[in-house]
Amino acid sequence: MLNLFLFNGGKSMDDILLMLPGPTTVDPRVLAAMSKAVVNHRGAKYGEILTETTELMSKVFQTPNKSYLLTGSGTAAMETAVANTVAPGEKILNVVGGKFGERFMKIAQTHGIDAQELAVKWGTAVTPKQIEEALDADEDIKAITVVHNETSTGVAAPIEEIGKVMKNYDALYIVDTVSSLGGDHVDVEKFGIDVCVTGSQKCLAAPPGMAAITLSDDAWKAVDNVETNTFYLDLKAARKSGDKNPPETPYTPSVSLTYAMNEALKIVMEEGLENRVARHHKAAKASVAAVKALGLELFADEAVSSATVTAVKIPEGVTDADFRGTTRDKYGVELAGGQDHLKGNVFRIGHMGCISYKELVQTFAAIGMTLKGLGAIDDAGAGVASITESYL
Amino acid sequence: MLNLFLFNGGKSMDDILLMLPGPTTVDPRVLAAMSKAVVNHRGAKYGEILTETTELMSKVFQTPNKSYLLTGSGTAAMETAVANTVAPGEKILNVVGGKFGERFMKIAQTHGIDAQELAVKWGTAVTPKQIEEALDADEDIKAITVVHNETSTGVAAPIEEIGKVMKNYDALYIVDTVSSLGGDHVDVEKFGIDVCVTGSQKCLAAPPGMAAITLSDDAWKAVDNVETNTFYLDLKAARKSGDKNPPETPYTPSVSLTYAMNEALKIVMEEGLENRVARHHKAAKASVAAVKALGLELFADEAVSSATVTAVKIPEGVTDADFRGTTRDKYGVELAGGQDHLKGNVFRIGHMGCISYKELVQTFAAIGMTLKGLGAIDDAGAGVASITESYL
Repeated sequence: MLNLFLFNGGKSMDDILLMLPGPTTVDPRVLAAMSKAVVNHRGAKYGEILTETTELMSKVFQTPNKSYLLTGSGTAAMETAVANTVAPGEKILNVVGGKFGERFMKIAQTHGIDAQELAVKWGTAVTPKQIEEALDADEDIKAITVVHNETSTGVAAPIEEIGKVMKNYDALYIVDTVSSLGGDHVDVEKFGIDVCVTGSQKCLAAPPGMAAITLSDDAWKAVDNVETNTFYLDLKAARKSGDKNPPETPYTPSVSLTYAMNEALKIVMEEGLENRVARHHKAAKASVAAVKALGLELFADEAVSSATVTAVKIPEGVTDADFRGTTRDKYGVELAGGQDHLKGNVFRIGHMGCISYKELVQTFAAIGMTLKGLGAIDDAGAGVASITESYL
Repeated sequence: MLNLFLFNGGKSMDDILLMLPGPTTVDPRVLAAMSKAVVNHRGAKYGEILTETTELMSKVFQTPNKSYLLTGSGTAAMETAVANTVAPGEKILNVVGGKFGERFMKIAQTHGIDAQELAVKWGTAVTPKQIEEALDADEDIKAITVVHNETSTGVAAPIEEIGKVMKNYDALYIVDTVSSLGGDHVDVEKFGIDVCVTGSQKCLAAPPGMAAITLSDDAWKAVDNVETNTFYLDLKAARKSGDKNPPETPYTPSVSLTYAMNEALKIVMEEGLENRVARHHKAAKASVAAVKALGLELFADEAVSSATVTAVKIPEGVTDADFRGTTRDKYGVELAGGQDHLKGNVFRIGHMGCISYKELVQTFAAIGMTLKGLGAIDDAGAGVASITESYL
């Protein structure tokens, strides 16, 4: 049974190309790493692997600080970031321009934190000026949350420029790079990010189930001052275990996913972080151009369109079920639908991880043939033609 | 690289036999399942696998109720159980006779729950009468927590008898079967357990990183009345996603560990739950007899000694580092040390998962040779001889 899956190039079981904003197609090297036998998570061997993996993680975050692995989803890491640095009753400013911005706010509210919403129209990005104004208007704000890459809308926030503004304020700068790290520019140290979180299954192209977090000294000071009401996600416990020799996690980690992350991060470093980011940007530009060549409309403002996901309006007269059902079942390309109020109105193309012209050609061929089949467009080939132009 | 690990019979990378109270040796079939390609966790394919896996989980829990998978450790499941059913300020009774009983209490305190400790001497088991008295003395107690198998002390609590007592009270009966389910008698329905949690990496012999939970109708009523302060571990969200068609998890799950759990649970059902429990009981009896044959002393009261782990006092004059270092590095058998105040005084033999006479023979040969080498005993072979007697 095993061989069947080993030799299909890591594609999904029924040979579907995953073009989702996570999970992404996992390299067979990474899948193979998970078949290694489980070792004792309190022993030297695991300590070595954990050390190597968290050091690689810090290199990808571009921070001199330690990174920590969490067995859980990106949401678990978002909760870890907020619940450990801001106390119940304290104020947080949540930039909300999509589902994940909203999630940060819901997490804060769940923990009894006084969540202030900085609402941004879905499809647009927050500006540094808006953040400056919000912080000037309320000096009690303890931290702000920004989602770098809002996969629900296909928008990238200007986290470097926001970082410049944040240097003038004491508030902590918490950034979700779950769907951008390894695919877009994230330089935790240079951008002045205090708490940065990411997930395994997006641009890092490991399987889902693991997340990572890194904190600045200021953020750790906040952690020390907050009596957190989370146990599994308690960062003081994570730090204490990480400081042991050999290092450990406070509770039993996914040993197999640690192997996977280790291998996936090695692949990132082999490609080179800059090369990988450039490859993602190239794919994003090609994707946007192909969308336009097909006569379709982007959901996000083009100027702030994401490097890792393209959100597209579904043409009038076409249903989401017909459209994505056909690309998947007839042409073997799995696209994501819209979330919340965008359900039925938007589809999303994830171009994360191991993505080059060939996945995009397949994807836009499937989109073109499907829409022509549904009578929504005349030229099924305009998208793929555009991809070849972009990659020439 | 892969083949190297596939053909070593699932043992750990450097051919160490893991005799820990988790993680346990994982069957190569289960490891192989993880090398299958990742599918979309919001699609029909994952929905099928999730449904099959949670149904198998309910069979192993022996409950007609639904089970839910959590991407996280057993501790995450313990926190889920408590933080969703008891509100901050309400009272909980925590039976504390070891590290994991203590953990339940710490979790409750972290969530602002009024934790009442029912302290039990480490190495002994709580009695149904003690619980009856504690509940009679305070009718405000909303729930009790019991650790079925306290791996820190090698003690099994009488959860069936406690269940009979609990039928006379409204308090919810929360039981941690992380290190017993699949290895000792756990019948959620028959024992009247309201909330039961378990982990992947103990008697179920899957890799670590996943946990499971099931709730009675009464427990779900409590969930509906509690405004929980946890987001990632929110059971209302888990229920809502589980009720979708196809079913989902609220946040991205470990797809690969779902494959692993699916395969591991199938192996449990192929063996038969009763056969598997009987095999664990046989191993536990053989282990206790071998400990005594070597002239060593059990840490736990023999009458309540665990079916899945044997805790043994380290003989006078022998250090933990010398003892466990030698069994591991010279004889290839990894044993667990003592936890908290038992560190240095106790070692623990996990006999969970795929355990038969052959692992016990290797283990007791290693223990015997090590202790004789350290001058602590005269007859290195008494333990292994006893194992052969037990299995004849």
